Amino acid sequence: MPNIKVFSGSSHADLSQRICERLQLEVSKASLKKFSNKETNVEIGESVRGEDVYIIQSAAGEINDNLMELLIMINACKIASSCRVAAVIPAFPYARQDKKDKSRAPISAKLVANMLSVAGADHIITMDLHASQIQGFFDIPVDNLYAEPAILKYIKESIPNWQTSVIVSPDAGGAKRVTSIADRLNVDFALIHKERKRANEVEKMTLVGSVEGKVAILVDDMADTCGTICMAADKLVEAGAEKVYAFCVHGIFSGPAISRLNASKFEAVVVTNTIPQEENMKQCSKIQCIDISMILAEAIRRTHNGESVSYLFSHVPI
Amino acid sequence: MPNIKVFSGSSHADLSQRICERLQLEVSKASLKKFSNKETNVEIGESVRGEDVYIIQSAAGEINDNLMELLIMINACKIASSCRVAAVIPAFPYARQDKKDKSRAPISAKLVANMLSVAGADHIITMDLHASQIQGFFDIPVDNLYAEPAILKYIKESIPNWQTSVIVSPDAGGAKRVTSIADRLNVDFALIHKERKRANEVEKMTLVGSVEGKVAILVDDMADTCGTICMAADKLVEAGAEKVYAFCVHGIFSGPAISRLNASKFEAVVVTNTIPQEENMKQCSKIQCIDISMILAEAIRRTHNGESVSYLFSHVPI
Ligand SMILES: Nc1ncnc2c1ncn2[C@@H]1O[C@H](COP(=O)(O)O)[C@@H](O)[C@H]1O
Ligand SMILES: Nc1ncnc2c1ncn2[C@@H]1O[C@H](COP(=O)(O)O)[C@@H](O)[C@H]1O
Repeated sequence: MPNIKVFSGSSHADLSQRICERLQLEVSKASLKKFSNKETNVEIGESVRGEDVYIIQSAAGEINDNLMELLIMINACKIASSCRVAAVIPAFPYARQDKKDKSRAPISAKLVANMLSVAGADHIITMDLHASQIQGFFDIPVDNLYAEPAILKYIKESIPNWQTSVIVSPDAGGAKRVTSIADRLNVDFALIHKERKRANEVEKMTLVGSVEGKVAILVDDMADTCGTICMAADKLVEAGAEKVYAFCVHGIFSGPAISRLNASKFEAVVVTNTIPQEENMKQCSKIQCIDISMILAEAIRRTHNGESVSYLFSHVPI
Repeated sequence: MPNIKVFSGSSHADLSQRICERLQLEVSKASLKKFSNKETNVEIGESVRGEDVYIIQSAAGEINDNLMELLIMINACKIASSCRVAAVIPAFPYARQDKKDKSRAPISAKLVANMLSVAGADHIITMDLHASQIQGFFDIPVDNLYAEPAILKYIKESIPNWQTSVIVSPDAGGAKRVTSIADRLNVDFALIHKERKRANEVEKMTLVGSVEGKVAILVDDMADTCGTICMAADKLVEAGAEKVYAFCVHGIFSGPAISRLNASKFEAVVVTNTIPQEENMKQCSKIQCIDISMILAEAIRRTHNGESVSYLFSHVPI
């Protein structure tokens, strides 16, 4: 492809490599270091004059360092006379701080959106935003891609008896995501409701729907500390589920996540590589990873060529 | 003072405490933590509705974390209906990345300026910007205060024979700063010129001016890895200086700085507390610290009351 440069931030070199392989491009050269006083030090290693630039950086590891690195890379490309700069952010940072849900809470996701714009981003490509409304925080185009087609494919290919499985949402907020998947697989769905009687009181979980004797597949957008999904797995086993799986797009796995999963009743916890999973998979044999690089690669190819991206909402590119 | 709240970021609680003591205020309540996935978690603990808010955060330690925390605090106060928000940034982050000095170098200081503005800052109070031009990166008012009056006072009070001392700049860029101090003390000045014959070749230092038998006082805006000032100290001793001191506003002291200073010929290296110095002073007995909290406190008091701040350019408030 002519007039395109793809750069990789330091959060997820493996994903950038895979995307570039699919696009039959080399990852463009950039030196990403820190000065001695911990300020981020970016040098773009090749000319971007008149080029369309794609910078791949995910919210993983040191979130603030990686965000700052992305912003500085955008700035550096922009002032080096690149044509358009797209930030490819598979897992969007601060996506859960998207509303004023307490008095005087920040809306950090909006701040991040504004920061990306002032840095010079012309276009955002992201995946399974925690809330689709975050697209509205931007005044530039945002392509919010879905891992759903890849997840459906994986379920069909790797879960025995998926035809009689039940798709379960671990909370009311996920009902829409779960019904969409259940519809496309033509299977039943169920919902878990978390009651919090009083602060600090142990939560009570109520299951709406039946999983008796069936394979239960929990679906959520992200797996962070895994407290909720592990409790949900217990609940599902208690309710007679034969096997329990979880599918989550973003495998954050912070804090006690890995030890909880190792002690859990899950058959497998399947995530995508919007966040690097190599280390996590070494520490927990239950974690499996779906590669979504072809979705991002195809989105980059299509935007660069001015083709429609919506094909990707229902198909997995080959 | 009515209608004012002063918050402290987590980079420099001691300075915030000192500033608030001078203003006879309590530091306002805020909870500053990290979520399990390392996203910054800010909760403003008291109402700021209709108040003028000052948030004190310096470029120290984990620069990117502290910058992000400051931005989120500004956002939180702003959307909680505060009146005006001033960011008090004693040491400005990324101040040295203020120009495109290589091909495709970022201008990160400009990016930081834009980020502060989109976060909602109405006013910036800072100290000894590495380049005064950074003020022009903002479209909001910037008060760039000077530690110079406090440094002059300290020299007069604590350096014996300062009347016959020579003020020395460790590079050509600092000539203006040094002549200003020499003029006000009515003493001589000298200049060190660094030649870099070829990359990786040992630098040669040339001293312009005489320090023979005199007290030499190196002056610069920041002391980071201290390579240059330690070489300069050797040069000055070699040229016959009786004693060598250094005065720098921002004591960053990163990387090999402390061990270099411990092995150096300096009588003392004096910095201010725009950056916390407690730990540095424990590790190096040559480091001395000038408290500049009263300058920042007075600047806050004056801006809040709509009084002129320029008095502070030539006087140390008592
Ligand atoms: N990084 C994070 N880790 C854990 N909780 C978060 C994080 N960011 C935001 N939150 C909280 O998660 C809640 C939002 O989750 P949700 O209702 O699922 O959108 C809010 O109460 C936030 O304060
Ligand atoms: N945090 C930093 N630590 C060391 N050098 C830096 C830092 N930030 C920028 N620089 C470099 O310092 C030089 C600018 O210094 P100056 O000429 O004194 O303004 C440039 O070459 C920058 O690339």
